[in-house]
Amino acid sequence: METIDDVGEFGLIARVQARLPLTSPDTLVPSGDDAAVLAAPDGRLAVSSDVLLEGRHFRRDWSGPRDIGHKAAAQNFSDIAAMGGVPTSLLLSMVLPGDLPVAWVEEFAEGVAAECAPLGAVVAGGDMVRGDLITISVTVLGTLQGRPPVLRSGARPGDTVAVAGRLGWSAAGLEMLLSGEKTGNESGDGAEQAGPGATTAGPQTPSEPQPADYLAAHRRPNPPYAAGPEAARAGATAMLDVSDGLLADLEHLAVASRVAVDVDSTLLLLTPGPRLDQMLTGGEDHALVATFAPDAALPGGWRRIGTVHEGGESGTVTVTVDGKAWDGPGGFSHFGHSA
Amino acid sequence: METIDDVGEFGLIARVQARLPLTSPDTLVPSGDDAAVLAAPDGRLAVSSDVLLEGRHFRRDWSGPRDIGHKAAAQNFSDIAAMGGVPTSLLLSMVLPGDLPVAWVEEFAEGVAAECAPLGAVVAGGDMVRGDLITISVTVLGTLQGRPPVLRSGARPGDTVAVAGRLGWSAAGLEMLLSGEKTGNESGDGAEQAGPGATTAGPQTPSEPQPADYLAAHRRPNPPYAAGPEAARAGATAMLDVSDGLLADLEHLAVASRVAVDVDSTLLLLTPGPRLDQMLTGGEDHALVATFAPDAALPGGWRRIGTVHEGGESGTVTVTVDGKAWDGPGGFSHFGHSA
Repeated sequence: METIDDVGEFGLIARVQARLPLTSPDTLVPSGDDAAVLAAPDGRLAVSSDVLLEGRHFRRDWSGPRDIGHKAAAQNFSDIAAMGGVPTSLLLSMVLPGDLPVAWVEEFAEGVAAECAPLGAVVAGGDMVRGDLITISVTVLGTLQGRPPVLRSGARPGDTVAVAGRLGWSAAGLEMLLSGEKTGNESGDGAEQAGPGATTAGPQTPSEPQPADYLAAHRRPNPPYAAGPEAARAGATAMLDVSDGLLADLEHLAVASRVAVDVDSTLLLLTPGPRLDQMLTGGEDHALVATFAPDAALPGGWRRIGTVHEGGESGTVTVTVDGKAWDGPGGFSHFGHSA
Repeated sequence: METIDDVGEFGLIARVQARLPLTSPDTLVPSGDDAAVLAAPDGRLAVSSDVLLEGRHFRRDWSGPRDIGHKAAAQNFSDIAAMGGVPTSLLLSMVLPGDLPVAWVEEFAEGVAAECAPLGAVVAGGDMVRGDLITISVTVLGTLQGRPPVLRSGARPGDTVAVAGRLGWSAAGLEMLLSGEKTGNESGDGAEQAGPGATTAGPQTPSEPQPADYLAAHRRPNPPYAAGPEAARAGATAMLDVSDGLLADLEHLAVASRVAVDVDSTLLLLTPGPRLDQMLTGGEDHALVATFAPDAALPGGWRRIGTVHEGGESGTVTVTVDGKAWDGPGGFSHFGHSA
């Protein structure tokens, strides 16, 4: 099979670029010069970076290259949506082993391209370096379309806490993969079958997500991008994306806003999905969580899950479930996630 | 010694951020939310990314963490200068081994901060992930200050070819380190002594750079940032930064502009420096090379080194030295450097 070592630097760049969207009306100078030049129509750009490391953020035996391309783009696009913005461009830097098949990189690029397509986003630059372990570093840029950014710090006592998107699906899929690891019969891209851990998702009813949905959600998050700008237009007072888990990310919001937050498990469980602990602590679905003034009408796709209270003093519990600190199983954490 | 595993994610972020410039008038929302928001005063931002990989782009036994911080920032800032712009922000994503001393990361951050300081640039975001090998992924953003970007593609027959900054110094320093490797008596940050390979730089006169200068240049490039905007104001027709070597980068310019370029070795050798082959093929000094109309006055810091000619047809030699293809020793190349 043709590898990166076979095609060399320029061969690989050409093969990857052939599969990526490279120009848009906002791309004034595309990738290929010393720097790209991007339009910033309202005089600002929102920008964020993330790293995905093989073995830590993905496994090649669990996720196919298209999945990983989707995921790398999606988790970055979600950071722009969480500011109330619309992503416009990615920069994609990769460390790639020399013996990696070129086809892997091509299919990764196709995944990135497919995630970009509905947004009209482009890949405006990057770098490729040979190394031992696949490392994918993504920078995303986006526009706020003239609106103020929605920060983490604006929640006020009395505000409604609401969510758009999935909670705990990725964690439920990961649990299935972990329990199935011993049997070794999992596969990547396009796998539709539930793994041997399917029963951990509990009894199924027709309206509930199926095990295969959780597996697919782990491989490719499906963030509710449009819900970010909609929340901003509806006057959201604070917003962030759920990457570390609902409780962990609500704590970031509570600390930044100097408030306390109570989650109502009854409201959470109105939406069919995985177990409560997975909804509360599972990360990587990139749902959006936001706060709205008590009398605000929630935009479509947003559902109420709790209330903001006075609080936030140092040393106190800032996030509760049904009025109590969460003492169930939980805690998805990774090292060093920042804006 | 205190390691990254000892202090954990949030401890490390706090320690690093304490050493970095985080805010400027252009930083509308600093690092810490889902995304930073940066001002784009003229409605555009220039943006580029680079990866530095331990063992490939730096060695911890040859370069100290401050050196590596300087270099990571400098090679990215240079890409903005090469468009005629001024860098304003970096995003800094790092893979770091858990057993790495926190002090290493702190000193790296101090090197980045020192390179940012004269430019007033800030670090507006990033990510930190634990992994086996130090991997540093940098994205730089900058402003064109209302000017059109200077592309690689604008050179015209008859134009003057000119250079600002050093050529071949980093390559001369690397050659010293490589020849000294066997003796194992090299050191990193702050080393002022020439290595055992010093004699390879040839006999010294008082006006010539000393071996220690080449070593220092390899560890910390010193790109002529201000020369980029100055060239743009002086009407440069094309420009790029010399990261792969003068001949290799002039070929990028010649191909993009559909011209041929001849370098005059007599002009090159007017400036004291390393051997001609190192000047022609050594990369990583991040000199700027640009073309100017024949009657243009070169801005201060720029020196003429050659002429643009008709040419650039596919399959022909596009870059010559004294009218002939360069057949001396040469070729610094690395895998996959793009904008």
